Amino acid sequence: MIVISERINGLFKKVGKAIDDRDAETIKQMALEQVTLGANVLDVNTGPGRDDEAGDLTWMVNTLQEVVDVPLAIDTPNPKAMEAGLKACNKKAMMNSTTAEMAKMESLFPLAKEYDAEIFCLTLDEKGIPNDAEKRSELAMLMIATAMGYEIQPDNIYLDPLILPVGAAQDQGQKVIDAIHMFKVLSDPAPKTVVGLSNISNGTKQRSLLNRTYLAMLMGVGLSAAIMDPYDEELMKVAKTGDILLNKRLYAHGYLQV
Amino acid sequence: MIVISERINGLFKKVGKAIDDRDAETIKQMALEQVTLGANVLDVNTGPGRDDEAGDLTWMVNTLQEVVDVPLAIDTPNPKAMEAGLKACNKKAMMNSTTAEMAKMESLFPLAKEYDAEIFCLTLDEKGIPNDAEKRSELAMLMIATAMGYEIQPDNIYLDPLILPVGAAQDQGQKVIDAIHMFKVLSDPAPKTVVGLSNISNGTKQRSLLNRTYLAMLMGVGLSAAIMDPYDEELMKVAKTGDILLNKRLYAHGYLQV
Repeated sequence: MIVISERINGLFKKVGKAIDDRDAETIKQMALEQVTLGANVLDVNTGPGRDDEAGDLTWMVNTLQEVVDVPLAIDTPNPKAMEAGLKACNKKAMMNSTTAEMAKMESLFPLAKEYDAEIFCLTLDEKGIPNDAEKRSELAMLMIATAMGYEIQPDNIYLDPLILPVGAAQDQGQKVIDAIHMFKVLSDPAPKTVVGLSNISNGTKQRSLLNRTYLAMLMGVGLSAAIMDPYDEELMKVAKTGDILLNKRLYAHGYLQV
Repeated sequence: MIVISERINGLFKKVGKAIDDRDAETIKQMALEQVTLGANVLDVNTGPGRDDEAGDLTWMVNTLQEVVDVPLAIDTPNPKAMEAGLKACNKKAMMNSTTAEMAKMESLFPLAKEYDAEIFCLTLDEKGIPNDAEKRSELAMLMIATAMGYEIQPDNIYLDPLILPVGAAQDQGQKVIDAIHMFKVLSDPAPKTVVGLSNISNGTKQRSLLNRTYLAMLMGVGLSAAIMDPYDEELMKVAKTGDILLNKRLYAHGYLQV
């Protein structure tokens, strides 16, 4: 499974301040830490309320690329900032994200095509997040079909069924599992899937335990990628162990040390 | 999910000695511990090589029933000992187990019918354990059909796809997951499923981590019950947390303390 770090994000004080101060060393050090801990991709987000998000994202991408070689996921709702971020990337990037809202797809799919980027497609439209798996699957199908109209390769698409906090919407945990199942039959080869894992435990008191248990459950049904916290050691152990159990990483007694 | 304790088993020295010595206090204390830790069922196994397995099992069942009120799973390959164990049970019991071998089914299904017991059906026949999900599913279907011939209610059947050690047969982890999926369509309502969880980590150096990660994966695809170690605190936390995430147990901040 692909581990996408959620920790290069201006919402975190240390990162936000480093962006404000153009403190490249802090960003570089965090990126190196996260990749060393096992992150396969870094999600790059300036945080909200910035005057020059495009400029900030460009600086972040350039800074990160000086020290790490992993793909970056450009995370912004702003199409101009998205394009600036993609332009700065020196390798295939990920776009986080579009929804099934037509205006969003019309502004973001052309960028995905132009930059040959992978794009996260959130099963959400003008009416909000559907509360069952079937409706999520319908929106997923709509996004796949629309993306095809823009000549986007299906393997550049990651479907995101949108995890909700278990403390607020306890019935949705099973529905997201069911949605990941249903997504598998929408195309051949099966579409890839991604989740923002930490949502599951928002507002709870057992964040790591809920995150890592749910991660394993989702890996069991075939999740391709998760945006998650690489600093959570127990969570990272579960990601590695899950890959072992799914025969995607070779078992050896010392696999956690590899 | 139903937690079936694997720790009332003569293979463990303390239990074996208690059986030899007819030391009821030790057995009772362990049973109380295990139920307090969250075991919903106790698997009862004398261990191999006993002169009077039927007598030993009867004593164990009687001893356990003096202190705990949970169902017992009578675990023996010996039909005579199985019947003695079932006879001693004062409530609906579980039988661990039959395979798809005709001689086994012919001796054990009549007992399941007579005692209205639940029975674990291992997808294994004269040729051994199939190495894919499809063949496991065929054996499962054979067992369900044969059981119906004995007028056994489908909801008394637990299918066991047989977990193999990840260190020895790494490709089988995914296949057991697939098998649990496939089993779901074999009857309506879907057949229940059970696994001997600890097998996954046999011979490895990360037993608890492998056990608990795999448990969550299997819960994600709908596992009904697991024979497992209630003394493993982290594993028991995953079982509880999995039930929360599947909306089978009410979320509350202090759910681990409930």
